[in-house]
Formats: sequence, structure tokens, C-alpha cells
Amino acid sequence: MSAHVSTNSATDQRLADDRALIESRLHAALSAEPGVPDRLARAMRHSLLGGGKRLRPVLLLWAHDALAGARREDALTAGVALEMVHTYSLIHDDLPAMDDDDLRRGRATCHVAFDEATAILAGDALLTRAFALLSRVPGLGADLVGILADAAGPAGMVGGQQEDLDAEGVELTSDLVRRIHLGKTARLIAAPLAMGAILAGADRKAVAGMEQAGLMLGLAFQAADDVLDASADSATLGKTAGKDAAAGKPTWVRLEGLEKAQARARRYGLEGTETLAGLLKPGPAAENLQFLCRALWERSR
Amino acid sequence: MSAHVSTNSATDQRLADDRALIESRLHAALSAEPGVPDRLARAMRHSLLGGGKRLRPVLLLWAHDALAGARREDALTAGVALEMVHTYSLIHDDLPAMDDDDLRRGRATCHVAFDEATAILAGDALLTRAFALLSRVPGLGADLVGILADAAGPAGMVGGQQEDLDAEGVELTSDLVRRIHLGKTARLIAAPLAMGAILAGADRKAVAGMEQAGLMLGLAFQAADDVLDASADSATLGKTAGKDAAAGKPTWVRLEGLEKAQARARRYGLEGTETLAGLLKPGPAAENLQFLCRALWERSR
Repeated sequence: MSAHVSTNSATDQRLADDRALIESRLHAALSAEPGVPDRLARAMRHSLLGGGKRLRPVLLLWAHDALAGARREDALTAGVALEMVHTYSLIHDDLPAMDDDDLRRGRATCHVAFDEATAILAGDALLTRAFALLSRVPGLGADLVGILADAAGPAGMVGGQQEDLDAEGVELTSDLVRRIHLGKTARLIAAPLAMGAILAGADRKAVAGMEQAGLMLGLAFQAADDVLDASADSATLGKTAGKDAAAGKPTWVRLEGLEKAQARARRYGLEGTETLAGLLKPGPAAENLQFLCRALWERSR
Repeated sequence: MSAHVSTNSATDQRLADDRALIESRLHAALSAEPGVPDRLARAMRHSLLGGGKRLRPVLLLWAHDALAGARREDALTAGVALEMVHTYSLIHDDLPAMDDDDLRRGRATCHVAFDEATAILAGDALLTRAFALLSRVPGLGADLVGILADAAGPAGMVGGQQEDLDAEGVELTSDLVRRIHLGKTARLIAAPLAMGAILAGADRKAVAGMEQAGLMLGLAFQAADDVLDASADSATLGKTAGKDAAAGKPTWVRLEGLEKAQARARRYGLEGTETLAGLLKPGPAAENLQFLCRALWERSR
């Protein structure tokens, strides 16, 4: 993503600035709560402050900005909550009973750095704390909690993870792959766009439009990721297939091959980008958001 | 508990009726959401509908009634959310990495009936769904989410579970035991009283008073539980200590012996009962709530 964003230096600078802002708010959010046992606090910090592109908080902030919102501070708070939910999902996903990963962004995963029980609790704690934070955004707490909880819940992200697990060894269909990607990935790309719109005071229709754009962009993001995974691996010394394809993961590449998957990423991406363009007033903030949204899927070309 | 409650037949009937009502709302809440993968939905049902006294939802409902609230339907919704959070905590607590329990209320625990990954996700799903439900209570969604998320979060229940784990092999102090019991147990007894008060339209001071009463009653409940655990076991064929004491759990019995622990349960219980009495107008609904609250700790005598 960063390679693309760096083609525009104003956007690039803005991205660096806003990431720094988000990073500082993430630190502050974990320091603010008294009474958290030391080991739990350290495990939460290990995973939440362990790097990452902060893609979802930036999307939320820039969606807010692109719709001429005037509640940047609240958007930052909501972005912190969103990153906490994303981080909890990574911690639980990495557990031995799930994907059993030892490394994440080049560092030990939470259960390796601490222990399994602490990792389960650190994930639970981040998820719960996210809703506590969101609930206190003046006037919009209930709406924001509702959107994020629906996106992350059993008919959203958690459901996608369950279907992902259940899909191992099952014959894939495009309906199934699409449903898994919607749940696992797209709902948590759509949520920041919808939350940013709500904070910007957008009407119901615009919020739904932003959410719809986000779902398409999320599907494109996941498809592009699968393509990258597959092509990176075949380019490397003698490996015959991508890690995810080898692990029997439900990907477009596995279902229909590299080229069709690439075309699919582009198709979803263009649809999302067009929906988005129809909702924004032209200007630098809209350009920033569109730039970031293209970078989600153009990586694959 | 039921032995005590049955000494008053009107209260007893009310309890049976309200439990039936809660049971029916729990069923409905899990059927209402489309798009939940089948295996995940079954795991959530297995644990949420697997019996239980529904103590926390009844406390919430009766606190609402005792303060002359007129929002019973919303109190039932909040009670369902609360029971979902309680159930999630049991599912995660029972995992092999945590307490490693195979049985809960005479049935297989979630990870035994399904598998570990599904149990982790079912817990995550119930927690997230609880906040989605609460957020939609008209006008009070944000307040209710805030109270429950604080009670269940890293400075509350999850923190208590972490300290419980970390306490194994550590020398106990009364400060530590009290803090663990507050987090693990009392916060989720205080939350229903505070939530019921908020739904009844009580003022800030009354809500804080109900919460304070709940913390004391929660401490009494846990102390009484430890006493029961220890005395039941010593009464049974040749066992020398309670299960929890043997497992090195932080209990009052382990720290200061059976008699002092019994006195402590009574002291906390009376303090909570008195605080509560000062907040309620006399009448049948207040009597029901006081009856239930005494039953939390009088079991030990």
C-alpha cells in the first residue's frame, strides 16, 4: 500500500501525520484505564502497539474528513476502538486452536509472548474495552456500538472466521468464498466508512452508501491479498503454491485461478471506488480517501 | 438458592414466571439474527440455552421493578445481553488453556461438545452480540453498553480472571482476594442492579447506590460460594479440602479458614442488604428483590 500512496506527496504526508495521531491515541487509550492487572495490560499493549498500518482507523478518519465532518477527536476515539477490535480478532485468530501462528508483523504473537490463557483474555479485554470507549462518544455512542458490533459479530466477522474454519476440506463455491470474505474482511472495512459517515453527520442513505462501497472495497482487498500471496510464493525459490492455497484456505485463486482472481479484485475495486465517488464532494479530503481506497486493491496489479 | 426462595410462595411464583420469560427471550434472541453460520449458531445455543438460574437477568429485572420502572421489555432485552456476557465468560473460562473443564451444569462444555476454535468463537460471538442488542435499547443504549463493558472489561471481570490465573502459587493477601472477587464475580452482580436502576429512570445517585450494594452482595455471594465448596467437600467421603482450595484458588477459606470466611460472607451480605434497603420504597417488588439478594449469601448458613 505505501508504495502507491507515496506517489502523491501531500497524501503521503497526511497519512504519516494521521497514523502518528492514531498511534498516540492508542497509547493513551491503554494508559487511561486504572485497575487493569499488569500482565493483562502488558499483553494488550504487546498486540495493540505492535505495529501495523492502522488502515481501519485511517479509513474512518478520512471518511469523516471527506464528508466534511467536524468531529475529528471523536473519529480518532472511534478509530482506536476499531483498531482494538481488529487486534482482538488477530490475537484470537493466531491461537493454537485457530491458525496457530507464532509470528505477527515480525514479532511473537500474544500467546507466544505471554501464554494462551493471557492471550484469550487480552483479546476479550480489547473487544470489551472497544465498546466501552465507543459508548461514550457524545450523542452517537449507541449508533457506533451497533454498527461495529453487527460488523464484528456472529453474522459478520466472527461468522466469517467460523465459516473459514469449517471450509477446510470442503468443496468451494463462489457463493461460499464471497460470504467468507464478506464476513472475515469486508465487514471490518465497511464499518470504518459507515462510522466515519455517521460522525460526519451524513444522512441514512449516505451512511448506507459508504457501507456498500466498503463491502466492495473489502472484497477487492481480500481478493488482491490472495493474488499477492499466490504470486509472491510462486516467484520465490521453488514453492509451488501460495501459503493460503496450500493451507486449503478459501481463496479466489484456489477456486478459479490467478488471472480470474485478479480480474475479480479489479471488478470489486472499481465498483467500490465508483460508489464512493458518487458520495463525496470533490476536494483534497475526498481525493485522499479515494487514493487510500484504490491502494487497497491496486496492490495486485 | 431455590430452597430459600421457596419459603415465600408469591416470590417463588414470580421467580418461576420471570425465569420462563427470560428463557423465552434468550431463545428468541438467538433465532432473530440471520446469516449466522450453522455450527456457530449451534455452539452459541448449546451454551446459552444449557440451563442455569438466570440469576443476573432476574436481578436486573427485579431491580427495575423495585424502583417502579415502566420499561420491562427493555429490561428483558438488557437481561438477555447480560446473560450472553455471563455465558461467554463461562465458555472461555472452561477452555483447556484456562480452567480446562469438561462439564458445566451436567452437560459437556462448549469446546468438548464442538471444538476449541468453535468455543472461542462462540464466546466472542455472544460477547459482541450482547453489545449489539444493548446498543438498540431506545435512549439508553450508550449508557447500558458503558456500564456493562466497564464491568466485564480489563478493569472488571476479565481483569479478575487474569489475576485469578496469576494468583496460582502466589501468597494470598486479603487485598488480593478481595480484588479478584470484585472483578471475577461482584462486578457482574453489580451491573444488573445498576442497569435495572437506569432502565427504571433512577437518578445518578440511586444508580451508584445500587451498584455499590451489588458489589457488596457480589463479594458475599463469592464468599458464601467458597464456604459451600469447602464444607460440602469435607462432608463428603474422605475428601480433605474443597475443589477450589485444592486447586490453589484464591478463596477466603484458604486465606483465613472456614469460620472467618463465613463471618465475612455475612458481613458483606448485611452491608449490601442495608444499602439496598435504603434505596427502595417498601412494597412487594422491593421485597422480591431483597429476598433474592439475601439468597445470594444466606445459602452458607
